[in-house]
Amino acid sequence: MDTLVESKVTLKTPAYAAKAAKAQLMPWLIERREPGPHDVLIDILYCGVCHSDIHQVKNEWGGSIFPMVPGHEIVGKVVQVGDHVKKWKPGHIVGVGCFVDSCRRCEACRAGEEQYCEIGMSATYNGYEQDRKTPTYGGYSTRITVDENYVLSIPKGIPLERAAPLLCAGITTYSPLKHFGLEAGDKLGVVGLGGLGHMAVKFGHAFGAHVTVLSHSPGKRDDALALGADDFLVTKDEAVFKENANRFDFIIDTISAPHDYNAYLKLLRRDGIMVLVGLPDPTPLSAGPLIVKRRSLAGSMIGGIRETQEMLDFCGRHGVAADVEVISIQEINQAYERMLKNDVRYRFVIDLASLKSGAP
Amino acid sequence: MDTLVESKVTLKTPAYAAKAAKAQLMPWLIERREPGPHDVLIDILYCGVCHSDIHQVKNEWGGSIFPMVPGHEIVGKVVQVGDHVKKWKPGHIVGVGCFVDSCRRCEACRAGEEQYCEIGMSATYNGYEQDRKTPTYGGYSTRITVDENYVLSIPKGIPLERAAPLLCAGITTYSPLKHFGLEAGDKLGVVGLGGLGHMAVKFGHAFGAHVTVLSHSPGKRDDALALGADDFLVTKDEAVFKENANRFDFIIDTISAPHDYNAYLKLLRRDGIMVLVGLPDPTPLSAGPLIVKRRSLAGSMIGGIRETQEMLDFCGRHGVAADVEVISIQEINQAYERMLKNDVRYRFVIDLASLKSGAP
Repeated sequence: MDTLVESKVTLKTPAYAAKAAKAQLMPWLIERREPGPHDVLIDILYCGVCHSDIHQVKNEWGGSIFPMVPGHEIVGKVVQVGDHVKKWKPGHIVGVGCFVDSCRRCEACRAGEEQYCEIGMSATYNGYEQDRKTPTYGGYSTRITVDENYVLSIPKGIPLERAAPLLCAGITTYSPLKHFGLEAGDKLGVVGLGGLGHMAVKFGHAFGAHVTVLSHSPGKRDDALALGADDFLVTKDEAVFKENANRFDFIIDTISAPHDYNAYLKLLRRDGIMVLVGLPDPTPLSAGPLIVKRRSLAGSMIGGIRETQEMLDFCGRHGVAADVEVISIQEINQAYERMLKNDVRYRFVIDLASLKSGAP
Repeated sequence: MDTLVESKVTLKTPAYAAKAAKAQLMPWLIERREPGPHDVLIDILYCGVCHSDIHQVKNEWGGSIFPMVPGHEIVGKVVQVGDHVKKWKPGHIVGVGCFVDSCRRCEACRAGEEQYCEIGMSATYNGYEQDRKTPTYGGYSTRITVDENYVLSIPKGIPLERAAPLLCAGITTYSPLKHFGLEAGDKLGVVGLGGLGHMAVKFGHAFGAHVTVLSHSPGKRDDALALGADDFLVTKDEAVFKENANRFDFIIDTISAPHDYNAYLKLLRRDGIMVLVGLPDPTPLSAGPLIVKRRSLAGSMIGGIRETQEMLDFCGRHGVAADVEVISIQEINQAYERMLKNDVRYRFVIDLASLKSGAP
């Protein structure tokens, strides 16, 4: 018997939305679908605020869909499950990351790399369901209906507000470190100490690497060391690039503003790899630094469901979680302003209780 | 007893040199060192003409040392060996590639990757011996003295004039295909069909890959297929890039003129790799194509002694050799002119008999 039929819950759901590009976020009522046989209805507790939320609200990448309810770092509690759902039960603490569905048939999906779905994954917001017409709305809302296969388990022991950013910032940095083979004892350079960078430091440290943060901001030194970094280099000083040539086995580059890839590549030893997870405007690349030491420059985008669960379990075992500032949904526009000034350590997380309490 | 003492050979050696940047190559007499206990004296039979010879004669990479005797694709016959040389005997047919020595102590040298010597390998020409003061002169000459450890064996069965280009063009393309793991059945794209590209096609074919040549020149189609390619794409047509998106597992990019890396990266499937072996001026790189399919862009430079021998042995077993036009040393300046017009299929090789015959 379908629990849905018995359900009396109405699926009208309070949310915060941008009604047009660059508009302020404002209260808006969305409709969540009634859970189907394979769906899970989640009461959202926390949602992290990712820099890509701002990019998309401002339509800086083009193609934004409005009204837009951002948010893809979702942690919540299962409140209802469809008839055929085996894995989840009401009361389970779960997460939803950057996508809520994918084609499930292409080579990427079959490999468990749904983020690279060849047909196109359904982004958690600013996207469409697999029907290609129903818009998706994200975690700046009180609940969400998600297919059971795109739901993650949050391990016990991680404070929930600190777990939320793992669903994007966490997996975005964990996945390339794993995929491209960071090993204990390796010298890891983390370029940029923001939401992504601070997670890369934590993972690098937990993997047993010797972690060096490279930042424009001398003031971040103490923070970097406190987060687990072993060393800190101020990249404003050009001499730093000469002095540290050929030093790193692996660099993860989290910067979204244009910068000189060539200068950073030269910091890699022979056969070293630099992985980009930020999306700056194009900058000139010279083949020389790649050729003379057989270096590689790669990119990586979030991670698949299997690997995201692996990352969450790793965080549970190793006590890894994001450093966050919890805000109410009513503070979201000010939070965006502060993020644009890099004034956040290191992730804003919305406490969705603030949207349930009735105050708009 | 040292064979050197008995030797009556004079080491004055005819050569062709550029006396200054952009000068025509002209006859010049150089002095080769008397073979020491670990040296081999080689009578040069053939020397390939590499595009980097022109770059360096024109001082286009800066720091050229004049007078310059180019040539680093050397095949010849051993005529004398030092007392402690075990591996080589007079009469052996041997090769010398892009370097004639290296520090032998750094991590790269110990790993058999002498081309990446951290102290600095001794380039076969336009460089210095490990004493950092004795200039090196290349294969546009009748003989050369080389440390036994930097000499390669040319397997029987490869016509010697067609073996010479293997020492640079061959290893430069073989090494990245091996190192970055091209496998039988992989879809390989070869960008550019010149001296390097035509070798990449032959190796790709010999490795069992499905080889596609990407070239600006529609006229190269028949040649490409004859060399072993399975397919040919004309890159002048922009539509080609859309139609072939996500097609290749591996691309080797041999072009030295600036071109849009981003367009070629998009031809790679998820987790595909593109390796640069040419050195164009810097061009804008977008992180997007790397990130959205976790693609990699790498560089590679020639190969180490061990791998060069492996490549030569592979060529012997698989009947792989360069396609060449044999010229006399007196034709070298015209050959450079023709190379600048891409008018060579696919490598000029100097028959050094032309320099021994007395005609200047």
